Amino acid sequence: MTVEIICVGTEILLGNIVNTNAAYMAEKLAGIGLSCYYQSVVGDNEERLLEAINVAKKRSDIVILSGGLGPTEDDLTKETAAKACKRKLVMDEDSRLAIENYFAVKGVKPTDNNWKQALIPEGAKAVANHNGTAPGIIIEETDCKIILLPGPPGELIPMFEDSIIPYLESFSDKALVSQTVKICGIGESSVENMIKDMIDSQTNPTIATYAKIGEVHIRVTASASDKKEAKKLIKPVVKELKERFGNYVYTTDDKITLEQSVVDLLLANDLTVTAAESCTGGMFSARLINVPGVSEVYKTGYVTYSNKSKRKLLGVRKAVIDKHGVISAKAAEEMVKGLNLITRADVAVAITGNAGPMASEDKAVGLVYIACGIKGKITVTEAHFNGNRNKIRESAVAAALSLMRNCILEYYSRVTFGNKSEE
Amino acid sequence: MTVEIICVGTEILLGNIVNTNAAYMAEKLAGIGLSCYYQSVVGDNEERLLEAINVAKKRSDIVILSGGLGPTEDDLTKETAAKACKRKLVMDEDSRLAIENYFAVKGVKPTDNNWKQALIPEGAKAVANHNGTAPGIIIEETDCKIILLPGPPGELIPMFEDSIIPYLESFSDKALVSQTVKICGIGESSVENMIKDMIDSQTNPTIATYAKIGEVHIRVTASASDKKEAKKLIKPVVKELKERFGNYVYTTDDKITLEQSVVDLLLANDLTVTAAESCTGGMFSARLINVPGVSEVYKTGYVTYSNKSKRKLLGVRKAVIDKHGVISAKAAEEMVKGLNLITRADVAVAITGNAGPMASEDKAVGLVYIACGIKGKITVTEAHFNGNRNKIRESAVAAALSLMRNCILEYYSRVTFGNKSEE
Repeated sequence: MTVEIICVGTEILLGNIVNTNAAYMAEKLAGIGLSCYYQSVVGDNEERLLEAINVAKKRSDIVILSGGLGPTEDDLTKETAAKACKRKLVMDEDSRLAIENYFAVKGVKPTDNNWKQALIPEGAKAVANHNGTAPGIIIEETDCKIILLPGPPGELIPMFEDSIIPYLESFSDKALVSQTVKICGIGESSVENMIKDMIDSQTNPTIATYAKIGEVHIRVTASASDKKEAKKLIKPVVKELKERFGNYVYTTDDKITLEQSVVDLLLANDLTVTAAESCTGGMFSARLINVPGVSEVYKTGYVTYSNKSKRKLLGVRKAVIDKHGVISAKAAEEMVKGLNLITRADVAVAITGNAGPMASEDKAVGLVYIACGIKGKITVTEAHFNGNRNKIRESAVAAALSLMRNCILEYYSRVTFGNKSEE
Repeated sequence: MTVEIICVGTEILLGNIVNTNAAYMAEKLAGIGLSCYYQSVVGDNEERLLEAINVAKKRSDIVILSGGLGPTEDDLTKETAAKACKRKLVMDEDSRLAIENYFAVKGVKPTDNNWKQALIPEGAKAVANHNGTAPGIIIEETDCKIILLPGPPGELIPMFEDSIIPYLESFSDKALVSQTVKICGIGESSVENMIKDMIDSQTNPTIATYAKIGEVHIRVTASASDKKEAKKLIKPVVKELKERFGNYVYTTDDKITLEQSVVDLLLANDLTVTAAESCTGGMFSARLINVPGVSEVYKTGYVTYSNKSKRKLLGVRKAVIDKHGVISAKAAEEMVKGLNLITRADVAVAITGNAGPMASEDKAVGLVYIACGIKGKITVTEAHFNGNRNKIRESAVAAALSLMRNCILEYYSRVTFGNKSEE
């Protein structure tokens, strides 16, 4: 069974809005084992939309269209789909009543064009919309099923969850299950080289790598007759990947982020953390604090952007700055020492570097020093990042999370991962 | 001239990532007057990609593909495009040197598959990538131009701005000029109501509003035979918008961000700034520090996440926390007072609130207090934001920038905007 997604709307074609509906539906379709090979976007134009529907009908078993079901003149998805299926539009009594009720509750009088929304292609099924006036529509042709959904995510998502997924699941002949092995501390090409043999010989499960800033994700996907069988196929592959990458693997749970895994590690070891940031200017702390429940481990942090604030707040010595510069391993080390003195946090992280756009202290753009201290033991790394100011800063934050994670793992023999999915 | 966008990547088809590249490029293409009638997404599959390229080549003058230029086995956009154009791949010396240099700077040895990225279709032009290893590629066929771009937005966006837009502009037969009036401090529906008459009667220039987090952008676009003529059409409309929105307009320069305009305002008035952040956890400082040259105005900031750190570092009184809670106007005010005592910054900003996911102190998720103090005068605002934890925090940061801007403008009669484009 193959599905295809067509999103209708000139506002997507003009880039006024990002097509989150496509990503949402694609993820859900993959989750129930339906293969989606094409997504497309067309504007509110009958000729091009008709062509797109006809092409999709021929190559896919199910075509899902979203958008263009509104009451206005330029909403013509329903009319065009009816044309593609050679059906006329007829009034759907349930939908008409729903619209009547929708406006009655709001205390507003519907306009003439609202009734247009109760028309559906003859023989099609209307799908109730509890969050708007346009019903969804399912047209069952002999060779293809066409599903029309409203464009606003607040209407599309609940309709998809409540009505469309159960409908689609009845057609899925196989179960597809994915698991992601998330890795930090090594680059994508190294990761690929370490699993080249596995990628070359992959069939089912399949293996694919995705590069993120400071991370690589390896997704393992298996297809089987049911979910239990698919999970069984994934298990040995994930185990093999975990053995090959060891401590580089920070989670095998799709939902766990790097910052979440680091916070989990701090929680598991009863550790608190503090940070002093220069070029990243608060991004490191902000990323940790995006984790709900971080208040157990994170209390205070500092943005020491000026040299003076590094000296005054953290006690970085003037002699060190004069000799090595403020972008130096030595300065990063002194920042951590200062953090140890002014806070009682167990783990201290300092970041100092040049995020650009200009060289500073004759230090290249992208040169960043990151230090992590755990109860007296300080580790400093030097890194060279590419990209614009923001990319360099994001890379520095990811590297700092990785370094901190390594330092904690090294310090504590009792290694506790955040892999909640492993049970 | 019609352009078509094809985004390549199984991760988009599976819904793992949202297709922001398509929206970005579509907006830029509309901005230079090129019509885009189709966007599509195909996976890393040669057969279906080849079909998509062949269909696009036939119906569009320019086809832009993004993604699939990486060093790995499943990256096959370049190979497939070469096949569609019946060209073989040859080594591009400049690209090879760029890759050599990229790794030399990093002090890392490239792997064999990195060199694959220096291959381009015979007769094609390589486009330098300053943020990664995959060059962009332009293949000029007689009936169609095919442009290949890297998938990561951090590589695609700068390449698009620096090289692709100037290349595409040379094909446009009319001049389209846009200017954006950027507004902060009022919502989209209020903005729309204030210019309803202008929107209803628009022809050339056109007027469109875009809601951003904490901001509204009004884009004015004129079409004419040349750029000078188009600029002349835009001028009175922008002037009218500036008159209607007054101080709410923070810039009319597309390139100036809200944080840049605030930093410019600080620089113009010789002011320094500091911040103490709770729920935003460093995001406010991080956003200011994304502005190059901010070191003149920003020296030190604090992330006071725990109650204890608000008391210890900023001197927020226990009695105030006990009586009003730490999420309160009073606590925000005391945070600013504390900042005034421990720093010598002219402007102090404090943010405290509940970013969720759970209610805290019986305060609703999304309730945030923001205080701004300028030389003794403290202004506190209460805000209610919607969305997830991250959206609430981003909204709070934008609101804090707006508040700080207003406070400075109120305090100093000598109003100096960051509108460098106005001369």
